Amino acid sequence: MVHPVAHSRTVWHYENNEWTERTDEVVNEFPVTIFLDEEEFATVVCTPEYIEDLVVGFLASEGVIRSFDDIKTITIQEEEGFAHVETHARHKLNQRLYSKRYITSCCGKSRQHFYFYNDARTAKVMTEKNVLLTPEDCSHLIAAMQENSVVFRNTGGVHNAALCDKKGILIDRMDIGRHNALDKIYGYCLQHNISLHDKVIAFSGRISSEVLLKVAKIGCEVVLSKSAPTRLALELAEELGITAVGFIRGSSLNVYTHPERIVIQK
Amino acid sequence: MVHPVAHSRTVWHYENNEWTERTDEVVNEFPVTIFLDEEEFATVVCTPEYIEDLVVGFLASEGVIRSFDDIKTITIQEEEGFAHVETHARHKLNQRLYSKRYITSCCGKSRQHFYFYNDARTAKVMTEKNVLLTPEDCSHLIAAMQENSVVFRNTGGVHNAALCDKKGILIDRMDIGRHNALDKIYGYCLQHNISLHDKVIAFSGRISSEVLLKVAKIGCEVVLSKSAPTRLALELAEELGITAVGFIRGSSLNVYTHPERIVIQK
Repeated sequence: MVHPVAHSRTVWHYENNEWTERTDEVVNEFPVTIFLDEEEFATVVCTPEYIEDLVVGFLASEGVIRSFDDIKTITIQEEEGFAHVETHARHKLNQRLYSKRYITSCCGKSRQHFYFYNDARTAKVMTEKNVLLTPEDCSHLIAAMQENSVVFRNTGGVHNAALCDKKGILIDRMDIGRHNALDKIYGYCLQHNISLHDKVIAFSGRISSEVLLKVAKIGCEVVLSKSAPTRLALELAEELGITAVGFIRGSSLNVYTHPERIVIQK
Repeated sequence: MVHPVAHSRTVWHYENNEWTERTDEVVNEFPVTIFLDEEEFATVVCTPEYIEDLVVGFLASEGVIRSFDDIKTITIQEEEGFAHVETHARHKLNQRLYSKRYITSCCGKSRQHFYFYNDARTAKVMTEKNVLLTPEDCSHLIAAMQENSVVFRNTGGVHNAALCDKKGILIDRMDIGRHNALDKIYGYCLQHNISLHDKVIAFSGRISSEVLLKVAKIGCEVVLSKSAPTRLALELAEELGITAVGFIRGSSLNVYTHPERIVIQK
């Protein structure tokens, strides 16, 4: 890594009416500007690791690519924070679409819940039930994700995401940006052709509509979180067939949508 | 409010090996699309309250307006989530600039820490020391902000921001979006001509570079948080003259930058 994910600095700590000078770890934030077919496309501020995965996952989330094969070349300038991506289908790109409000009706998904055209186009509907988890599986996966996160324990400043199956964590990523950790997982899966049909996403933060949409784009049936969901995320989860499990703390949890994938162990 | 900030829904709760069906409050996420001089400018997903303040604060943060007088008319369609803003200086707008990476050197601020052209242009440098706080003031302001937040207690899903002086909270806002709560405060201050030179921002989330930049744009000398800062945020705080105080928990805290504004009470 050219840029470390965290660095030490002096802080003035106050406790029990006393000041002490001490050294603390602070997470890094690092901007990566993506040039797509030679045009500036977007700047993502992230934790500087797995940058290539992040760029690939971000472009897939944004609907720019459908598979890793759509990318002709990708060059990361780690020091400067630039990513240069050349696609095979350069003439099809239309940047203006990506941040556009989804006002007209199309794609067969309800306009009421999809605010961006691009999300309606790229989010998958999960009709299968390939994943069955017990409440204990859910608690165990969230606990395992948290135990793995050394940076979180040292700095308190990052979100964690993990791709799991029933048995445990397959890969985990952390980032100061809520969605970047998920994009890093998505990019890894695309590059390595990981099958996602029986996988689960565990996430340390709130289940917002953006997090839920990422899970749908990646193509997972279940999202687990120790935190709260939002209403819009749950409406999207209903529509996209995703099981949303929140407030996983110790041995308790809440199932919000499609509860048929969470079962009691006999 | 046309759209409530939270709504009740049925969840399946698991605890002590038992499932119960119960009703929980879930926060709303609501998209507001801003049309600037008749062109679609941006969509902000937010908690649906204080939408006009949010739009004004967002446009000021983005450098589109400098004061409330720059706005000729503002019309909010609450039901649909549209904001129509007409400015006096329509010919000066250049949307392409707002999300552009700050690559060339200008504005007298270090290119190393400012990644967006627009941030370098709009963030204020705080050279004065109008605010002096004791550690007890810091703890008290954070505690007061959290006590005020009924929605947070009910849903666990929002960020809080408060504009304070030494004595207490002046206004507080909450939002599911990290920056929206700060933009709502900024918009309110601009519309009501609130003097900011002796004010402090308390924030419930992490002090990221974006949060720090918002504080600098609003024009406050001190930012208080119960959470961690990032390295980039602290580098910006150093450069912009802002005192950053993090991990305010009970009676302990960390001062990261410009400690001269935090004093022991004699």
